[in-house]
Amino acid sequence: MSSFGTVFRVTTYGESHCQSVGCIVDGCPPGLELTEKDIQPQLSRRRPGQSALSTPRNEKDQVFIQSGTEHGKTLGLPIGMLVKNEDHRPHDYSETDLYPRPSHADWTYIQKYGVKSASGGGRSSARETIGRVAAGAIAEKVLQKANNVEIVAFVSSIGEVSMNRNAQDPAFQDLLNTVTREQVDSVGPIRCPDATVREQMVKVIEKYRDSKDSIGGVVTCVIRNCPIGLGEPCFDKLEAKLAHAMMSLPATKGFEFGSGFAGTAIPGSQHNDPFVYSLTDLRLRTQTNNSGGVQGGISNGENIYFSVAFKSAATISQEQETASYEGKAGVLAARGRHDPSVTPRAVPIVEAMAALVLVDQLLIQKAREYGRSIVA
Amino acid sequence: MSSFGTVFRVTTYGESHCQSVGCIVDGCPPGLELTEKDIQPQLSRRRPGQSALSTPRNEKDQVFIQSGTEHGKTLGLPIGMLVKNEDHRPHDYSETDLYPRPSHADWTYIQKYGVKSASGGGRSSARETIGRVAAGAIAEKVLQKANNVEIVAFVSSIGEVSMNRNAQDPAFQDLLNTVTREQVDSVGPIRCPDATVREQMVKVIEKYRDSKDSIGGVVTCVIRNCPIGLGEPCFDKLEAKLAHAMMSLPATKGFEFGSGFAGTAIPGSQHNDPFVYSLTDLRLRTQTNNSGGVQGGISNGENIYFSVAFKSAATISQEQETASYEGKAGVLAARGRHDPSVTPRAVPIVEAMAALVLVDQLLIQKAREYGRSIVA
Amino acid sequence: MSSFGTVFRVTTYGESHCQSVGCIVDGCPPGLELTEKDIQPQLSRRRPGQSALSTPRNEKDQVFIQSGTEHGKTLGLPIGMLVKNEDHRPHDYSETDLYPRPSHADWTYIQKYGVKSASGGGRSSARETIGRVAAGAIAEKVLQKANNVEIVAFVSSIGEVSMNRNAQDPAFQDLLNTVTREQVDSVGPIRCPDATVREQMVKVIEKYRDSKDSIGGVVTCVIRNCPIGLGEPCFDKLEAKLAHAMMSLPATKGFEFGSGFAGTAIPGSQHNDPFVYSLTDLRLRTQTNNSGGVQGGISNGENIYFSVAFKSAATISQEQETASYEGKAGVLAARGRHDPSVTPRAVPIVEAMAALVLVDQLLIQKAREYGRSIVA
Amino acid sequence: MSSFGTVFRVTTYGESHCQSVGCIVDGCPPGLELTEKDIQPQLSRRRPGQSALSTPRNEKDQVFIQSGTEHGKTLGLPIGMLVKNEDHRPHDYSETDLYPRPSHADWTYIQKYGVKSASGGGRSSARETIGRVAAGAIAEKVLQKANNVEIVAFVSSIGEVSMNRNAQDPAFQDLLNTVTREQVDSVGPIRCPDATVREQMVKVIEKYRDSKDSIGGVVTCVIRNCPIGLGEPCFDKLEAKLAHAMMSLPATKGFEFGSGFAGTAIPGSQHNDPFVYSLTDLRLRTQTNNSGGVQGGISNGENIYFSVAFKSAATISQEQETASYEGKAGVLAARGRHDPSVTPRAVPIVEAMAALVLVDQLLIQKAREYGRSIVA
Repeated sequence: MSSFGTVFRVTTYGESHCQSVGCIVDGCPPGLELTEKDIQPQLSRRRPGQSALSTPRNEKDQVFIQSGTEHGKTLGLPIGMLVKNEDHRPHDYSETDLYPRPSHADWTYIQKYGVKSASGGGRSSARETIGRVAAGAIAEKVLQKANNVEIVAFVSSIGEVSMNRNAQDPAFQDLLNTVTREQVDSVGPIRCPDATVREQMVKVIEKYRDSKDSIGGVVTCVIRNCPIGLGEPCFDKLEAKLAHAMMSLPATKGFEFGSGFAGTAIPGSQHNDPFVYSLTDLRLRTQTNNSGGVQGGISNGENIYFSVAFKSAATISQEQETASYEGKAGVLAARGRHDPSVTPRAVPIVEAMAALVLVDQLLIQKAREYGRSIVA
Repeated sequence: MSSFGTVFRVTTYGESHCQSVGCIVDGCPPGLELTEKDIQPQLSRRRPGQSALSTPRNEKDQVFIQSGTEHGKTLGLPIGMLVKNEDHRPHDYSETDLYPRPSHADWTYIQKYGVKSASGGGRSSARETIGRVAAGAIAEKVLQKANNVEIVAFVSSIGEVSMNRNAQDPAFQDLLNTVTREQVDSVGPIRCPDATVREQMVKVIEKYRDSKDSIGGVVTCVIRNCPIGLGEPCFDKLEAKLAHAMMSLPATKGFEFGSGFAGTAIPGSQHNDPFVYSLTDLRLRTQTNNSGGVQGGISNGENIYFSVAFKSAATISQEQETASYEGKAGVLAARGRHDPSVTPRAVPIVEAMAALVLVDQLLIQKAREYGRSIVA
Repeated sequence: MSSFGTVFRVTTYGESHCQSVGCIVDGCPPGLELTEKDIQPQLSRRRPGQSALSTPRNEKDQVFIQSGTEHGKTLGLPIGMLVKNEDHRPHDYSETDLYPRPSHADWTYIQKYGVKSASGGGRSSARETIGRVAAGAIAEKVLQKANNVEIVAFVSSIGEVSMNRNAQDPAFQDLLNTVTREQVDSVGPIRCPDATVREQMVKVIEKYRDSKDSIGGVVTCVIRNCPIGLGEPCFDKLEAKLAHAMMSLPATKGFEFGSGFAGTAIPGSQHNDPFVYSLTDLRLRTQTNNSGGVQGGISNGENIYFSVAFKSAATISQEQETASYEGKAGVLAARGRHDPSVTPRAVPIVEAMAALVLVDQLLIQKAREYGRSIVA
Repeated sequence: MSSFGTVFRVTTYGESHCQSVGCIVDGCPPGLELTEKDIQPQLSRRRPGQSALSTPRNEKDQVFIQSGTEHGKTLGLPIGMLVKNEDHRPHDYSETDLYPRPSHADWTYIQKYGVKSASGGGRSSARETIGRVAAGAIAEKVLQKANNVEIVAFVSSIGEVSMNRNAQDPAFQDLLNTVTREQVDSVGPIRCPDATVREQMVKVIEKYRDSKDSIGGVVTCVIRNCPIGLGEPCFDKLEAKLAHAMMSLPATKGFEFGSGFAGTAIPGSQHNDPFVYSLTDLRLRTQTNNSGGVQGGISNGENIYFSVAFKSAATISQEQETASYEGKAGVLAARGRHDPSVTPRAVPIVEAMAALVLVDQLLIQKAREYGRSIVA
């Protein structure tokens, strides 16, 4: 379904060639200063066409708030938002109608829905993420107000080229402590804050662009200043909700949290995060953070960090041997030019989904804290 | 919260030292043959104490159906189930009351709930998974009846020792096609079907057992005969629901689907799964299966497979330097003997959660198929 | 929250003075013929200004489909819809800013949200129902396709003047069997199909209009051709979902089902609906229908019927003694002319909510029927 | 489905002849003193067999807490509870197997589930309400702690005999202000606090008992000290949730809120509740309370009150002409003695459902209040 969240809930609509794409954000606190200017920056960050590295199709993606605000402040009521589709004539892909695109959603959509939409994969279109990003921008604003929560995502690998993201390496933990969105954007469209690998990443993308191919990558995200206590065991552990959110993004193939897959090879005696009393915070903190800021499904106040794997884009500019809908072997012709790596564009989308998970869990936790308070 | 699923829903209860643990399974189809005998085998598979490799604490874990069946068949009504706790005196861990166990949930639970339960981490106890496994056994039976769905999980890595799980390797895909639960169990408690690494895995576990330490691992799971069309874009894509389910398990640090993280380095031209007409199935299938059986969030009829990372167990038998609840640095004493690797025990739990996701999506998809049929 | 439904779900947005009001309909079957022409008629039926009996404010309420259809057919994807607000300058009610309107939502909204919206009662505005009606029109179309379901609501009382709605009276049951929307509309804006009381109802409304007052009424609704088996015990009994839906409408004060409150005084021996074999349907039916088409929370194939009480409109054209927000006693000045009876306008809204409940339950029931089928 | 609530959620299980009936209460605040003694009184109040007026079948209904408490306090974790069925041999009703009981759920259950359970109507059994009452007792305790909320239900009519429940009558409003559970119980099993009609009610019930018939009635419920701001427009208005809850109870035919159906005939000028500044509360209150404590779906701090119609029990001790499952006309034999009026027993069940609605909305509202606070 197209809704996400319990007390702060986004519902999205829209595919590639309809009138508009957008969302309804339900449960946003009232009194929050909010205009289109708060939302547009993240929408613009997810736009293609920002550099030679990404797809040349230029999208405008201007958001219009429909409801839920007055005089630049939220009312506590559902916030309708929409972004018009520039090209809403459902015909573009007609020349490829004979072939379901390999590893795209054309075939599964027709299996499930029995209808071949002009855009092929219907809601698997990247434009579906616009509603998420618009909603996430609002969620982020709430989180900033609530606890000065900071969410920063960045590209940590492109193809085989990976920056250091070893949970046990203090340098990586330092980067998680300090990296900002401005830094991530300032290094160009690649959005990798690690200068030692950035050039290689650009080269990898250029290589695949030149060979009319595509390449995947990993986006890592850190959440700082997350309040303690978020997450609802047992099924709605914080990392479970984050996993759900991230794996609902198009083209994702993996999610790892804290020490992640590599952490499975670190023995417990080293992987355990010992407690230490912080004289700054006047409370226990952990000396290391292999846990990724969550223990038992509940945030512990340390940085939350996780990584999301994005596969190589299914849409490529070279011919592909495959079969037609009717089952005939043939060649799917190359069509136009395509983004060789969508991973950098995923950065604001990952941030948006992280914000949506957190704000919902934050509000629920405040209900829990009240519950505790009544017996005091 | 402790509920999972939409039209087939499990709700669980219970922690380590209460009267019983159990669940309510709501939405199970009527007329299904079901007795405790259908449920007990998976519960027994998750029990500790099956070998020298795992923890010696012996649990009985006999399940009792409370409702929802008559004369050995389901009524279509909620199925209550419970397993008594052998030791339900809330006192066991009192000697360690001064220290929150590192990387366990003791501290976050007390932060969230303000109450220190006898079991420390409350619902983070492994006994919480009993309700999941009992419910999963019912879900599996429905899936078998519905489409002969087969779900087989196995250990694919322990520490640094990993079997081949390269999505592009035909040998791995063959194993996914053929591996059975019987095979997995027949190789001893390690539950790794790959003979080439099994001995090393045992040695790794023995090493960490002998050093009073623990080590993590990866469980891989394959779902065969999954019907086409399961998954509800955009937020409830099939892999998103599976990720949610798996990352809600205790001690998980990662989830990957199909080609996973490694797949991010395979260029699109190789990663894309070309279509080919199957003369056996009289429909399109994919030649390779890097996608892991899902495209656009919807199952495509190929094997679904994914891996789940389990961290090294936080509870270890050696002393740990840490801080007390009050903030004093000190040493948490070793307590008894503990399972050096919980990964093999996770196998039936992973299977259970996979079944719970699938059966819910299957029933929803049947609602969708009906919706399609009315306009035909 | 602003979402309703489980597998067929509507989410609405919008208040009186924002850019637009609308909704997202998620879970609509694909392949359904659908254009604005299918939706507009019910929107127009809910518009004020259709006669001297109702408020003169003229609304246009033209609906625009944003997504989810191509070439006049649904894609199975979320259907975004919007209706522009003619007057979206948030200032209209400024002259009354000193006083919360009695029995309106001004005061409770400011208590809950802390923000005084221009429209006073925010989402309690009648314009909020536009999204419901648009979504209901789609739901109805699905129900017609599925089972030729017919939903007809009508005014059954205005003030003290009530038509016969005695569940035990064959004449009333006959009316339920036969009444059509065309009949209901053909008798003028009063929408009462009973000629014996209609004139009196008009007189009652005129009386309250002339005295700058308002008067309430009851809307009765019948659902014909509802499939057997709808409803999900125990909490989601069909009548419980209908009650929820109806009591979520603005200005409602009561809901009764089948024989209703009067039925409490009919002894069991008369109230029970005996079974009889129908040679037409080749199955059991009930001889009488005091049950209102539902037993044990599950539809039995007989007509479903229920009534909804709408209070006298809180907004009246005469002065009212009350207190200001600051607590000073004073007089709330009369403002313009207002609809003396909103009850007739509620007719299409009641129909819409009935359709939304039914279509969701229908799709869920098809999942249940599949579940049953697998063990056959 | 068998779950109710969002952040405080009950899930129930069990029918007449299984091992036990019970529930899981999820989301209960931690630190609350809770033992079986807090729950048993309401369970005992719902038990049949308390007087000559009600059915002689004696049920014990002792509740056992399974989880979620330690040392007499809640842990914030799911609370499992069960009540054993005395007679769990599924055979009792076998002699009537040929006939679906009129206006009972036998026939609709077999239509929906395809299985004829021993108890006939499966979850339509009155024993299903045990889980609700047990959960409601916990909810009530939270509400008392939170805001000293008081919930008192009572019988307001039996058959044609009705006490005054005119919303505009100060005497009725006084009664709502003062009536206690102790008063309701002290007047015997009839549970009507109005001495002027009580004797007639008893006579009505005796009359129907003697004629082997049954008679319905109305239960009215008042909630005092409800915090301001509860309810989640637009679909989850407080009265909508209460309507859902009440109409999910077995044998209900109607729900009315505040002035109810009678209120539709009171003109707006009289029905509107003027505001007045309260020197006691130092805030606005309403002079009258036709609204029933809710405006725009949000509680306003006045008494919440509503009434629920219960039909005459379908199970009667006289013969009934009806048809067999196979369609043959015949006579359903009388079986044993049955409760001529279940209405008085519904009193604690209505209270339980009211508490479940309120506690869930209370916790959600605290999330909302936090949301407001962050922008202050």
